[in-house]
Amino acid sequence: MKTPSRFLTPHAAELPATVPFVGPEAHQRKLGRPFKARLGANESGFGPSPRAIAAMHESVPKNWMYADPENYELREAIAALHGVGNDNVNIGEGIDGLLGLTLALTLSPGETVVTSEGAYPTFNFHVAGHAGRLVKVPYRDDREDISALLDTARREQAKILYISNPDNPMGSWWAAEAIEQLIDGLPSETLLILDEAYCDTAPPGTTPPIDIGNPQVLRYRTFSKAYGMAGARIGYVIGEAGLVTAFDKVRNHYGINRLGQICALAALRDQDYLAEAVARIARARDRIAAIAAGCGLSALPSATNFVAIDCGRDVDFARRILAETLARDVFIRMPGAAPLNRCIRISTGPDAELDLLAEVLPEAVAAARG
Amino acid sequence: MKTPSRFLTPHAAELPATVPFVGPEAHQRKLGRPFKARLGANESGFGPSPRAIAAMHESVPKNWMYADPENYELREAIAALHGVGNDNVNIGEGIDGLLGLTLALTLSPGETVVTSEGAYPTFNFHVAGHAGRLVKVPYRDDREDISALLDTARREQAKILYISNPDNPMGSWWAAEAIEQLIDGLPSETLLILDEAYCDTAPPGTTPPIDIGNPQVLRYRTFSKAYGMAGARIGYVIGEAGLVTAFDKVRNHYGINRLGQICALAALRDQDYLAEAVARIARARDRIAAIAAGCGLSALPSATNFVAIDCGRDVDFARRILAETLARDVFIRMPGAAPLNRCIRISTGPDAELDLLAEVLPEAVAAARG
Repeated sequence: MKTPSRFLTPHAAELPATVPFVGPEAHQRKLGRPFKARLGANESGFGPSPRAIAAMHESVPKNWMYADPENYELREAIAALHGVGNDNVNIGEGIDGLLGLTLALTLSPGETVVTSEGAYPTFNFHVAGHAGRLVKVPYRDDREDISALLDTARREQAKILYISNPDNPMGSWWAAEAIEQLIDGLPSETLLILDEAYCDTAPPGTTPPIDIGNPQVLRYRTFSKAYGMAGARIGYVIGEAGLVTAFDKVRNHYGINRLGQICALAALRDQDYLAEAVARIARARDRIAAIAAGCGLSALPSATNFVAIDCGRDVDFARRILAETLARDVFIRMPGAAPLNRCIRISTGPDAELDLLAEVLPEAVAAARG
Repeated sequence: MKTPSRFLTPHAAELPATVPFVGPEAHQRKLGRPFKARLGANESGFGPSPRAIAAMHESVPKNWMYADPENYELREAIAALHGVGNDNVNIGEGIDGLLGLTLALTLSPGETVVTSEGAYPTFNFHVAGHAGRLVKVPYRDDREDISALLDTARREQAKILYISNPDNPMGSWWAAEAIEQLIDGLPSETLLILDEAYCDTAPPGTTPPIDIGNPQVLRYRTFSKAYGMAGARIGYVIGEAGLVTAFDKVRNHYGINRLGQICALAALRDQDYLAEAVARIARARDRIAAIAAGCGLSALPSATNFVAIDCGRDVDFARRILAETLARDVFIRMPGAAPLNRCIRISTGPDAELDLLAEVLPEAVAAARG
């Protein structure tokens, strides 16, 4: 630890130095060699649309220019896709960036935020950064517990309620009707952050229609998952214009990289490729489940681009499987909170990566069983 | 104007909706056609190193992966270039992003920030976002007034003092000794933000040696100017480790795009190309000055990749020249505050763009003279 700077605000001085997610590159530096399969960050090894790849190559020589700070064309295309106005869409450096901005805009120090125990650490990181009071509700049957979240928001007079659907890290989901009931039941003082990073891979009927007339709900989408361009750092928020345009008051107007902006637009325009990628992801989920079953482990149903695998014992067992898998150069992760942390979490990917998983996971499980 | 959302904090509700810089794309949408020369955003039409371009092309197929959230290799290379430790460097989405994070870490609401009247609007935007009290000091002889800035910081017990060297929008600069005197004279409670976005194009002796032992100074650098990759959105901050590592408490760890991270590293490793680009920029400055002189206007000396041109009359005259130039499809800008706004500001660029400027500026000046 360094001596804290005397220039930090009292709050900043108190903030922990922890990072939400250790990257695979940090593991690799520790291992001293690269991973052979990268199945831990819920990226998509299937990659983006060939049109997005072509757009990136075309844009390389023009990368001396800043991106359009209004993200005009991208917002317009997103708005058209969802049947909303341009003012109902704002763009950020991934959903992560937008979550931070949301809190900057809406959360006063000490106000309460409700989320699920074991849900998105990066969101919690931003809540801490904005001096929020975080109240956590346990998962129930490996799903975010909608009625308990709602009860807690009411009891705590929460300013913000966070839910992801489908959720990370379990890959579980609620039908649109359940989310609509959650929205209908919100206390009037509570803003719902509905993180739909994984909605593109979910079964039909998972995402409720977008209602930009409802000022209490913000929806978050990303190009990092099914669209296959995590490196581009492009996410977006959809909601009532009075709140969504307010992001312009605090966002880094020149924060979006030019290639990301352009390739997201190209990817959005290729919905056929997206459907193809989603089909590949679904097949990869099935294969991961089969590989797990072959090791005597049980995959949970997943609506995402990853599969949570119940290792059937305690956190120590799951941790041993994780460590043995990493030691065999396959990058995976596991949930951080009980009882979810009896599981490991494996991202979908192309066959070559899953071939390696099929080779390594049985060895890792055997080693963990000792 | 939209109805403000009731979920905004009282401070956010009060924030103005103004944006720091209208992008050239917004002008183009208004004009209904693209600019033929883009000489207004202080980008570099000379582009980045061919090695950076090659690195981007190579990275395109791998853009399905997040960037290393620790920016490890890039930080290491920057640290080596400057002879400091990895912990003395942090990376952000351009200097803009780092300025916002600096204020998030160090500025409590109501604390005072001193800057120059007419200096960087994006910095002022972030000060407003963090509820700072902004005190502005006039330029003197078209330079930031170091002794007045220091006197004001002392009088106002400023938490933060901002200066850019070389400065934007005038292109003027101080010798390193003057900056060192500023640093030595800082009140103990004041943190100096030393924005060196344009240092690569400045004469030798402009940037003081980096002293990471001094906890009162943060230095900001970018790949957007002389390095020629504004679209990549990569800036960095250098300083005492206790403050620089604290950025990890609040930054968007996965906010950096992968191609930007990788091409910045490639560009940094090609210092020969940087020297070549700087020479081209210097030649372009001379040519812009000659073009201005041909119109009866007087270029100010510049240490940056742009030239401020004194139009010799009032703001209305400068505005007319600006409008007439834009109407002829050449994008330039002008300073926003008196007395700087008697000038227009033209970025350097390749010969083809300056050829067009040479054609258009005399017409624009003639039209403005009426």
